[in-house]
Amino acid sequence: MASTRTERLMENAVDFDAIVIANDGEPFLDSSFWYVTEQNSGCFESSYAVVRKDGSMDVIVNVLEEETARNGKGDVKVYHSRADLEKYFQEALKGCNKVGFNVHSASYASVMGIRKLVGTEFEIADASDALAKTYAIKDAKEIEATRKACRISSQVAAEIPDYLSEGVSEKEVAARMDARMRQLGGTGNAFDTIAAFGPNSSQPHYMPGDYRLKVHDAALFDFGSKYDRYCSDMTRTVFLGEPSDIMRRAYEVVLEAQTAGIEEYRAGANANAADLAARKIIDESEFKGKFIHSFGHGIGMDVHQPIHVSPRSEQILSAGNIVSAEPGIYIPGVGGIRIEDTILITENGCERLTSFPHELTIV
Amino acid sequence: MASTRTERLMENAVDFDAIVIANDGEPFLDSSFWYVTEQNSGCFESSYAVVRKDGSMDVIVNVLEEETARNGKGDVKVYHSRADLEKYFQEALKGCNKVGFNVHSASYASVMGIRKLVGTEFEIADASDALAKTYAIKDAKEIEATRKACRISSQVAAEIPDYLSEGVSEKEVAARMDARMRQLGGTGNAFDTIAAFGPNSSQPHYMPGDYRLKVHDAALFDFGSKYDRYCSDMTRTVFLGEPSDIMRRAYEVVLEAQTAGIEEYRAGANANAADLAARKIIDESEFKGKFIHSFGHGIGMDVHQPIHVSPRSEQILSAGNIVSAEPGIYIPGVGGIRIEDTILITENGCERLTSFPHELTIV
Repeated sequence: MASTRTERLMENAVDFDAIVIANDGEPFLDSSFWYVTEQNSGCFESSYAVVRKDGSMDVIVNVLEEETARNGKGDVKVYHSRADLEKYFQEALKGCNKVGFNVHSASYASVMGIRKLVGTEFEIADASDALAKTYAIKDAKEIEATRKACRISSQVAAEIPDYLSEGVSEKEVAARMDARMRQLGGTGNAFDTIAAFGPNSSQPHYMPGDYRLKVHDAALFDFGSKYDRYCSDMTRTVFLGEPSDIMRRAYEVVLEAQTAGIEEYRAGANANAADLAARKIIDESEFKGKFIHSFGHGIGMDVHQPIHVSPRSEQILSAGNIVSAEPGIYIPGVGGIRIEDTILITENGCERLTSFPHELTIV
Repeated sequence: MASTRTERLMENAVDFDAIVIANDGEPFLDSSFWYVTEQNSGCFESSYAVVRKDGSMDVIVNVLEEETARNGKGDVKVYHSRADLEKYFQEALKGCNKVGFNVHSASYASVMGIRKLVGTEFEIADASDALAKTYAIKDAKEIEATRKACRISSQVAAEIPDYLSEGVSEKEVAARMDARMRQLGGTGNAFDTIAAFGPNSSQPHYMPGDYRLKVHDAALFDFGSKYDRYCSDMTRTVFLGEPSDIMRRAYEVVLEAQTAGIEEYRAGANANAADLAARKIIDESEFKGKFIHSFGHGIGMDVHQPIHVSPRSEQILSAGNIVSAEPGIYIPGVGGIRIEDTILITENGCERLTSFPHELTIV
């Protein structure tokens, strides 16, 4: 029975001779590097983990990272020159014909550069599914870090009404939320906080600007904290003063859709079931076609991990998966509603790790 | 005379038929995408800019980004399916034999995927130098955003002594600094704040932990703010109570090295001159060999941009470059000193955009 993370990884990649995790540099860091080395410090620019068939691992780092690297797993090799790098890679990948890379998280230059260093024409294979499959199932330590991140952002979600008054700007509220998450012990933002007021709330990926809150506006906040590298992800939408009838009704439908989706979350379920249940409710309402993204995604060291809770997903959920539940309705020029929680899949159902008052809130 | 950013880009890439900027998704975003589209909002996952020889540009985005994309430059094409993507790429790259990619910032999967969509065996070329050369010279709007980011972090640098007392932890101080930068109007961290106390300060890329500040410790802070996507980058090292003789002396040498390096910063100078001037001072002191990284790097929408102020750099500085000046001395097990400013290169010299008391500070 596999016990270490790298052993589990190679069980999910049986036909690979090795897997290379190439961590380029800010902002192209690959969280898989921290996952396999099992530590949460360091920057590890131009650092590499090479995992072999038996789960053993070389961690090839530049001298800046030496001290930090020695606190993690793996056999640390410090390079001082291109010749060192060449030697370490040639040793680590000797005789390998099929080498996996995290092809969505490694730059083109880095993958091609490593093959050139090794000097053999090994097959470049896609190890991203094997990695995703491995880190999709969180262990107790990972769940605990996620719980802490969720507690921090949930506290801020509860305080949102206190931050709102007529004339406050999106940027001001986003800054206050970020500051508060840090104050509560968050180790950073999981992603750039979205604060979108009034008509801006109809853009799912809007970034906070200078728009100032008006009476009757919806105010949508999509945000998360990190704790020990693990993310939370949640969205709360509230109103300043009475919403219009259409926005009130949209809130009602989104909340109903979220509840229906979450009921489908359990180990062994198809990942698309939650999306379809939520989408059915929206598409049978007067808001047909206004739910323009998927119901959820995996959450971990990256806020978007490849569990796809979407209409055509064929993935099966497992206990230990952490996913979002985030239906929305978007009416261009008018406004948008989204309600989102971070959810842990369990054997018999699921557990909401975030919390905030879900009923329609008028500030 | 080239006037737009994309026209300047193609003047720096005369033998390319087109350049594709592939913006994959959090956290693997390519700031070049925002640079060429000249906007600062949006997330733009799985979005692409295709720049042609004449500087005209298609911006291919998914439906989530449509509204946001239309506020920026370029001819926006919204895809709803893989077939749409295929059509838009085939149109945009018709007849192209040599297509540039930002190979250090685009994933292997994304580059190979685009070539497959187009269906021709065009040459994949490295456009990263052309891009770097273009965005290395900041325009007035970019300099103004950087100034604002620098003002925010400089204010926090000035306040650092107020945050320190015996027993405070690295994490606590880092959280307070981050919160304060947001409060002062920063739109986010330029990178994860480094707060390293005592012996931890000898690790250049240390991340804040639970270590608590002791009397005589060095306390090193490397941090920066973002403002409208532009970064500041600075490091201040102070002491709680009297430092040891060796650390006091190291501070003196680092400060002297920084001053000597900055004196070499001007348009037309070799980028390595600043590094060599600073390194000479450290290597002629008792700390020979303890300056284990380069003197500086470019700063812009990414905190590390490819201007290399290192011993073997052959780059020439230009007015409008923004670079760091950050010598350091690191003594494993004892501690480290680093002093860093963000600097604007001008015709006749340079301008320090960050500010804080540089003399040795004992709290």
